[in-house]
Amino acid sequence: MNNLLIIGAGRSATALINYILDAAREHNFFVTIADANLEMAQKKVAGRPNGRAIWLDASKTNDRRDIIQRHDVVVSLLPPQMHLELAQDCIALGKHMVTASYVSKQVLRLGDDARQRALVFMNEIGLDPGIDHMSAMQRIHQIKAAGGKITAFYSYTGGLVAPESDDNPWHYKFSWNPRNVVLAGQGTAQYLEDSKLKYIPYRRLFKQYRLVDIPGMGKWEVYANRDSLLYREAYGLGDIKTLFRGTIRHRGFCDAWNALVRIGLTDATFPIVDSDKLTYHDLMEAFLGNSEHTGSVKDRVAKMVELPPDGEVMQKLEWLGLFSKKRIKVQNATPSLILENLLLEKWALKPNDRDMVIMQHVFEYELNRRKRKLTSTLVMKGENSEDTAMSRLVGLPLGVFVKLLMLGRISTTGVNIPTMPEVYEPVMKELETMGVRFIEQED
Amino acid sequence: MNNLLIIGAGRSATALINYILDAAREHNFFVTIADANLEMAQKKVAGRPNGRAIWLDASKTNDRRDIIQRHDVVVSLLPPQMHLELAQDCIALGKHMVTASYVSKQVLRLGDDARQRALVFMNEIGLDPGIDHMSAMQRIHQIKAAGGKITAFYSYTGGLVAPESDDNPWHYKFSWNPRNVVLAGQGTAQYLEDSKLKYIPYRRLFKQYRLVDIPGMGKWEVYANRDSLLYREAYGLGDIKTLFRGTIRHRGFCDAWNALVRIGLTDATFPIVDSDKLTYHDLMEAFLGNSEHTGSVKDRVAKMVELPPDGEVMQKLEWLGLFSKKRIKVQNATPSLILENLLLEKWALKPNDRDMVIMQHVFEYELNRRKRKLTSTLVMKGENSEDTAMSRLVGLPLGVFVKLLMLGRISTTGVNIPTMPEVYEPVMKELETMGVRFIEQED
Repeated sequence: MNNLLIIGAGRSATALINYILDAAREHNFFVTIADANLEMAQKKVAGRPNGRAIWLDASKTNDRRDIIQRHDVVVSLLPPQMHLELAQDCIALGKHMVTASYVSKQVLRLGDDARQRALVFMNEIGLDPGIDHMSAMQRIHQIKAAGGKITAFYSYTGGLVAPESDDNPWHYKFSWNPRNVVLAGQGTAQYLEDSKLKYIPYRRLFKQYRLVDIPGMGKWEVYANRDSLLYREAYGLGDIKTLFRGTIRHRGFCDAWNALVRIGLTDATFPIVDSDKLTYHDLMEAFLGNSEHTGSVKDRVAKMVELPPDGEVMQKLEWLGLFSKKRIKVQNATPSLILENLLLEKWALKPNDRDMVIMQHVFEYELNRRKRKLTSTLVMKGENSEDTAMSRLVGLPLGVFVKLLMLGRISTTGVNIPTMPEVYEPVMKELETMGVRFIEQED
Repeated sequence: MNNLLIIGAGRSATALINYILDAAREHNFFVTIADANLEMAQKKVAGRPNGRAIWLDASKTNDRRDIIQRHDVVVSLLPPQMHLELAQDCIALGKHMVTASYVSKQVLRLGDDARQRALVFMNEIGLDPGIDHMSAMQRIHQIKAAGGKITAFYSYTGGLVAPESDDNPWHYKFSWNPRNVVLAGQGTAQYLEDSKLKYIPYRRLFKQYRLVDIPGMGKWEVYANRDSLLYREAYGLGDIKTLFRGTIRHRGFCDAWNALVRIGLTDATFPIVDSDKLTYHDLMEAFLGNSEHTGSVKDRVAKMVELPPDGEVMQKLEWLGLFSKKRIKVQNATPSLILENLLLEKWALKPNDRDMVIMQHVFEYELNRRKRKLTSTLVMKGENSEDTAMSRLVGLPLGVFVKLLMLGRISTTGVNIPTMPEVYEPVMKELETMGVRFIEQED
């Protein structure tokens, strides 16, 4: 295989493109970077010999197929909803395909077709999903191989701001899709505890957080992800008793976010007509009920969410400017979009800010009739707001896998996620040389 | 016009069919009742001379058009999502159409087509929507005609159980679509208060209820409907300061329903796998968080929803059987479907139970520089679980309007809701002879 196509050259592509262009020079293959923004793609190729940038509107079926036809492997950084169409192209044209997105049921159904054509369709090979799968499966297979029986598995991930760049009362900045942060948890979270199903509806999610100790980093809050149960089968943990996945936030975050949820600011179900004619103060007032008729809007909001008006949570809300007379900048927007727009400004990484990713797995297992516990923790910081830990941890696993695939070292065909040793062993090994190191603790 | 087609002969059709078959005999027109259940349609026609029952699967386009073609007016009791297709048929075939459903934007867009063909498309002419529009518009036009300026409009409706048949601690039984009751209020309710927009998110909706006095019936709880703002334009109340629509429930209902919402039982976003292998007790336990580790499931639920374990709300929950070891009867069901299924049994009208509908409008207005207030209240009870107030109040306005239309007394063409005197005057007048009487109070 000689020709690699990467579709999408946005923010999340930088680390991948840099890695793969170096690998391309070493191993003598050729990389096309396709994006609807040609200039951005050109900037990322930066004149390096084994790469070229081209313009592509991926929604145009014929253009897309023309380009795909001329390559051996396609890496897609397109939005997830594009992946079914792209996968169908790759089946039809006999090309391998790699993404960091969650694999949909429809794409999964192409598994037989891909296998029959000896094609590799690898998905969920970024950070979360991606490194979480690979690092967890490495340990699960090790424990099982030694004769251990896993009784509990907890896994937590957070895209955070590094302590040295943490200068706001929320102790949070965006290193990833803000929309996902604002809408996180809507619906009901499910997990398994002592062999029993557990549910946490959205309205209790940010109240019912756990405290988790990260070695050397102190205690952090973790709220439940929606999807823990899915991992029982994916990880071969059919008889596990406790299975919990969650998202890591700084202490104090969940209580404050819960206040935003209680007020109603994360609602995405209705547009506020002429929202750009309102101030944030007006918006907060609109959410006040009739039982809070006296005092300032801030005091009445505090009363509504049952918190002291000068406590930490209300200070965080005030710092966001929610009680200010500034105009809202978005028109006919839902409350959640107004909030997202405000947070984008308040929680932006400054050019020299460093982000930080924390991932921790905890395995409880029985071996030789003894109960044991293994804690495996990754902490990684970025360099600045461009070269983030987040973009590296999403891009590098993709890059390493694609290189292995181009070099003919991947034999597992069909539609997969990276839970097999053939994939996680070499990928995690090379990631370790790039500083992606899990610290293990046994007790 | 001589030929009327009624599509749908289900529970909500009885009062309409009885009324219209009497009218048909008197005025010599002919009525076809079409349903996929021929036997049910035949039973409702009951051999009366001016009616006949036919079998129709309304989803089959050709069959449907064949039947429509042979009639002058079509009344649809089909589910709302069918109405666009049916409206397109009626446009194409030049037929009038009448429904009790909310008019969709797509159907509204057919207004010009209907007008050009001189067709009457009347929607929202049941109870709520229907009688609420007509009774409110009557008073709004009267107040305006007298020179009054309306500053506030409150409108409340409830489908309830009559006090003499009220024998459960919730003081509620189903007289209408249970699904709508279980899912009511999800999203954010909007209304207008003192010229300011107000929002109540779902999580506060059943906490932030009002108490409303119904003459002769004591105080009732009212929670906000999602849609109050829509009525500003529909009712020509462009400069009104306060506009609030709500749903009436017995005292104590909202606190108890709020507990169900808090637990997570109204969630419709995820199915519980093998829910029929769980008991209600298991289900409640699954919603408990880790902070409530001791005591019975009932005590822990009480703690979670912050209520005394032997208080009224917990008694209502217990009465539903939520802490019992009985098996759940539905498979792979969402929490809301499990709840609906349980309530269907617990809140069913017994054969001789009487339901009760309450509707109240309150108008605040200025006339001759004096502030005035008009309260207009309808209370109507059913006879038994078949002949309910609900089915009469939905069916009779439809019936009266259709009769007027058949007799050529309706001249307003296009897609409309019944806000014009030509419609509400004769319809409300005839309804009054059938016991649909609003009691007025001025102060």
